[in-house]
Amino acid sequence: MIIVMKPTATDEEIQKVVQKVEQNGLQTNLSKGAEVTIVGVIGDKKKIANLEMNMMPGVDKTVRITEKYKLVSRNFHPQDTIVDVKGVKVGGKQIVVMAGPCSVESEEQLDEAAAAVKASGATFLRGGAFKPRTSPYDFQGLAEKGLKMMRRAGDKYDLRVVTEIVDKDDIDLVGEYADVFQVGARNMQNFQLLKALGKQQKPVLLKRGLAATISEWLNAAEYIMAGGNENVILCERGIRTYETFTRNTLDLSAVAAVKELSHLPIIVDPSHGTGRWQMVRPMARAAVAAGCDGLIIEVHPHPEVALSDGDQSLTPKNFGRLMAELGKIAAVMERTL
Amino acid sequence: MIIVMKPTATDEEIQKVVQKVEQNGLQTNLSKGAEVTIVGVIGDKKKIANLEMNMMPGVDKTVRITEKYKLVSRNFHPQDTIVDVKGVKVGGKQIVVMAGPCSVESEEQLDEAAAAVKASGATFLRGGAFKPRTSPYDFQGLAEKGLKMMRRAGDKYDLRVVTEIVDKDDIDLVGEYADVFQVGARNMQNFQLLKALGKQQKPVLLKRGLAATISEWLNAAEYIMAGGNENVILCERGIRTYETFTRNTLDLSAVAAVKELSHLPIIVDPSHGTGRWQMVRPMARAAVAAGCDGLIIEVHPHPEVALSDGDQSLTPKNFGRLMAELGKIAAVMERTL
Amino acid sequence: MIIVMKPTATDEEIQKVVQKVEQNGLQTNLSKGAEVTIVGVIGDKKKIANLEMNMMPGVDKTVRITEKYKLVSRNFHPQDTIVDVKGVKVGGKQIVVMAGPCSVESEEQLDEAAAAVKASGATFLRGGAFKPRTSPYDFQGLAEKGLKMMRRAGDKYDLRVVTEIVDKDDIDLVGEYADVFQVGARNMQNFQLLKALGKQQKPVLLKRGLAATISEWLNAAEYIMAGGNENVILCERGIRTYETFTRNTLDLSAVAAVKELSHLPIIVDPSHGTGRWQMVRPMARAAVAAGCDGLIIEVHPHPEVALSDGDQSLTPKNFGRLMAELGKIAAVMERTL
Amino acid sequence: MIIVMKPTATDEEIQKVVQKVEQNGLQTNLSKGAEVTIVGVIGDKKKIANLEMNMMPGVDKTVRITEKYKLVSRNFHPQDTIVDVKGVKVGGKQIVVMAGPCSVESEEQLDEAAAAVKASGATFLRGGAFKPRTSPYDFQGLAEKGLKMMRRAGDKYDLRVVTEIVDKDDIDLVGEYADVFQVGARNMQNFQLLKALGKQQKPVLLKRGLAATISEWLNAAEYIMAGGNENVILCERGIRTYETFTRNTLDLSAVAAVKELSHLPIIVDPSHGTGRWQMVRPMARAAVAAGCDGLIIEVHPHPEVALSDGDQSLTPKNFGRLMAELGKIAAVMERTL
Repeated sequence: MIIVMKPTATDEEIQKVVQKVEQNGLQTNLSKGAEVTIVGVIGDKKKIANLEMNMMPGVDKTVRITEKYKLVSRNFHPQDTIVDVKGVKVGGKQIVVMAGPCSVESEEQLDEAAAAVKASGATFLRGGAFKPRTSPYDFQGLAEKGLKMMRRAGDKYDLRVVTEIVDKDDIDLVGEYADVFQVGARNMQNFQLLKALGKQQKPVLLKRGLAATISEWLNAAEYIMAGGNENVILCERGIRTYETFTRNTLDLSAVAAVKELSHLPIIVDPSHGTGRWQMVRPMARAAVAAGCDGLIIEVHPHPEVALSDGDQSLTPKNFGRLMAELGKIAAVMERTL
Repeated sequence: MIIVMKPTATDEEIQKVVQKVEQNGLQTNLSKGAEVTIVGVIGDKKKIANLEMNMMPGVDKTVRITEKYKLVSRNFHPQDTIVDVKGVKVGGKQIVVMAGPCSVESEEQLDEAAAAVKASGATFLRGGAFKPRTSPYDFQGLAEKGLKMMRRAGDKYDLRVVTEIVDKDDIDLVGEYADVFQVGARNMQNFQLLKALGKQQKPVLLKRGLAATISEWLNAAEYIMAGGNENVILCERGIRTYETFTRNTLDLSAVAAVKELSHLPIIVDPSHGTGRWQMVRPMARAAVAAGCDGLIIEVHPHPEVALSDGDQSLTPKNFGRLMAELGKIAAVMERTL
Repeated sequence: MIIVMKPTATDEEIQKVVQKVEQNGLQTNLSKGAEVTIVGVIGDKKKIANLEMNMMPGVDKTVRITEKYKLVSRNFHPQDTIVDVKGVKVGGKQIVVMAGPCSVESEEQLDEAAAAVKASGATFLRGGAFKPRTSPYDFQGLAEKGLKMMRRAGDKYDLRVVTEIVDKDDIDLVGEYADVFQVGARNMQNFQLLKALGKQQKPVLLKRGLAATISEWLNAAEYIMAGGNENVILCERGIRTYETFTRNTLDLSAVAAVKELSHLPIIVDPSHGTGRWQMVRPMARAAVAAGCDGLIIEVHPHPEVALSDGDQSLTPKNFGRLMAELGKIAAVMERTL
Repeated sequence: MIIVMKPTATDEEIQKVVQKVEQNGLQTNLSKGAEVTIVGVIGDKKKIANLEMNMMPGVDKTVRITEKYKLVSRNFHPQDTIVDVKGVKVGGKQIVVMAGPCSVESEEQLDEAAAAVKASGATFLRGGAFKPRTSPYDFQGLAEKGLKMMRRAGDKYDLRVVTEIVDKDDIDLVGEYADVFQVGARNMQNFQLLKALGKQQKPVLLKRGLAATISEWLNAAEYIMAGGNENVILCERGIRTYETFTRNTLDLSAVAAVKELSHLPIIVDPSHGTGRWQMVRPMARAAVAAGCDGLIIEVHPHPEVALSDGDQSLTPKNFGRLMAELGKIAAVMERTL
């Protein structure tokens, strides 16, 4: 941490700041410039994290230098992490594609979707059984019935199953059917859920919060890893900005940022990220070209009758076209699909 | 809902759109302009909510006209709601002030804070026993030990107790000690928690999410009311914007917006809303002048040693000054403190 | 400036960073922590401003410590600046109110508006003759004809005249009729215009850009002051956020921020800041309670037929009510209206 | 336009709304739903644009249905526009690459940069002679001296010259040396400049404003086209969001949006769009995969000594690597480099 003193700070005020830092078991480094004096704080990360200095007389502001997360940081773990999901490796040479409907609606819908995405080369089936919805009157999902359908379709078509968990009390239930726990954007800082998932070994797909900085997102992943679960997959899914043409603004630079700051694999969700099915193909291609490790895409056999997010779902035919394009971009990136 | 057709839409495409709407048990109203045709959709709100039209050929876009919430809407409940917390009325003539430390740290700290805020005229004691923190290594709160201290201080100084709940499994525990359940910004769309609180009768203070629109916030309140709990108090606490000088941007226009759209009382949190103790006084005054029903303010006997958010806490002395100012502004607003 | 080295930076890399800084005529201060080494850079502000270090091997990031502006800074000019506009003082004890229509439309409209705002206590007449509009097909203003009407109405009712300038070539023309040059949000970083206004002595009302940080805004004011014109009045008018219920989000914490960082007077525009006439009264009251030095408010004799921004204009009657309220809040703030 | 009446609106209020619309020479279409009545407004676009209804009693809100721009709209001009810059076609099969330093600093620097970018396959030389800078104390560019250097280097290496214009009075001067006028993000709504460029025939590269919606950006392009200049190239360069790790958030979905809404070519600036040289390569690849028509990239022979934006400049060597990658992605997109 850097403590920037006001230009008007007295020697006594600087002295007291130094004293307070040192009383907290930390060292200081003084740097007197023409205008201002800066007090560098050196020592234990956790002690620094809890240091509150802005109330001290003469202090202008404090600047935090190092991130609080550690286990997710590439600095402390330079090699890429590969998360193994029953033999399918996320973060390795292969770009994994997770596809399926937003919500599980019926046996037929899911079977049709699973068959289609498998035929085009997806390796994961996605689909929601518990749906967090803005309004209490929107369709909330089929719950366990939906989970069972997911498992059956996954087994039938040899697809790994990824589905959202919204409540830590459902861990056993969801864990019985799913291969990957998905934590949605709204729950990215549901720390109770993160802590509970930290005690599992099953992989967790952690979506970025709607308004989460990359730093907050990595700190959320740290909650899971700090609990002992190292199988974390990050997922960029669009952030909230002032633009209204798209539902969210898909931040593909987050892919490059995560690759720089962390060793964890990162996938991209162009369906929620744009909210418009017309944009899913270009943005999925762009995501692969940006260097992501996978994609999660909404595919619905009949999007015009979907119970949720039909606007952003591809038809199986469009999904097939997309997969053909992605294969070629993956090859340029020296990866496979 | 309004369905805007493309300028190039054919009569057949328009026909199919009309058919689909009517098959869903809804009526249509056609309006043919010079450039585009618009299909108005009339009928049951919930049916409209689940209508997905953007995938249909010839459709340019859809525009939702009515909000999904109902119980929280002023349209359906024109009179102001007053929430009674053991005799203190929130939303009535009195502007209520909730004050206390960000985190409960010790018996002494809390007693000192409670005595001070009571002396200056606060009617509620605030303080966190469960702290949702960005990093797993930050102080996470004293849990039940903290709740007990809150209750004791509340009873000693005749202050209502408001404290955050972060887990639906803690409802009985927190309910035993608190008079108001506080739902923090990060949990505004933790729908499991909202549903569980909907089954309680104890009042809920619902903070606006960091990036929540006013509409999403009111829909979150609808989750609580739809469960049967009508005692909801809204709290504006700053939204995330591009500005970095303040921790958040306190959106005081939300006070006027809520008064227009809803009958629920609304209070303001200038401490989290700005993240700078220097701004708490001016923004608290402004909030009252904007028409809010109350304030929640961080006061710490020794903010420079606080375990969390010391930067935004007032000293008891500054809080006393603020209360004197607020009394005068309240009088201008024909309210009391 | 602080240069943060990577944990993996070698001694040689640190050495080269130090060398480069010193070759630029600056001093360094080395601080070796457990994880990272930090290089503090000390010396001339302008030299530091032009230092580019992020490309150097071993550098993690750089953090700028001091602001680039100087003349607008309270650090270098602790007393409040008072801008005198033909005897009306902006930034002193009196809270000045500038009111009038968004656009000048006709002699009658303007006369009616001027008479009304004068009667309620405004001291400035506002009105646009040059209108920067999103679409080329929107009403663009009456130009010189409008300026003349402004001057005539101003003289008739003893109101100072403030009007927008959108082109540096119009300085003489606008200067002939106006008492204050208004720079709109879209032109806040039109540096050619700012430089030209810096050579004038007539006061400049500088609106905050739609997405400008407070720091960028103060740097824009620095352009004017650096040219020699010290008569700058800042104006908060709402920033762009994700919220769509309001046209902009009025950032009243900017009032407190400017008072802390600068000595310049600051006024608030609740009309553009919210875009809804229903919100003008509460937000105007809030602005005064937050400590602003004035307000600029749209008043139109017949807002329902206004050629621009009728949605956010008050009727004379509502404006009169507002002024009565503001007088009382001003008194609480120990100021006059 | 759609006028949504309040649930409480009386028949008389609805009647008056209808009257006002019709008095403005427009038609209405009434749609009475269970909760609310909606008044559709049909007729001339410009008349609708100037209709102000929110002040009318009983009106809840108005929703604009059609965009104000026309000439830039794909609806009115379905085929892609190709802008010819002295034989190099922007918007055709070839993906054009514009490269060079942020600022022109010296003859040597520019020659070295031009030679390098030409060698790697760029067809345009970029470089700033007039630099709009946040602070008046930052380097402001070499002006005409810089323009001459640009022209000389462009001619020597057969590169088209694109450079920023910040003042309409410089049109003749800049036009003498440049092949494309660049309008920077800060000037996207400098309507005087746009109108003046509308009278030119030389192509204009219009960067998206920092906080401009896609709609506002297309309306800005409409200003240029409405003046008679059809040679407009759009450029996405990152928008302002809450994320601070990157300088801006590059919105690649804007590429797909522009392709849907407009016939104009669109290029992408990954250098300003991210502000980090490490991200330029992945985001440039992603932009091509998203379907853009070109790129504008900062390349500096010695970025560590650049006078501006060194942090986001590639070395010639990194640029060469990038061009090799882009060639392969272009091939997948069935385009050339």
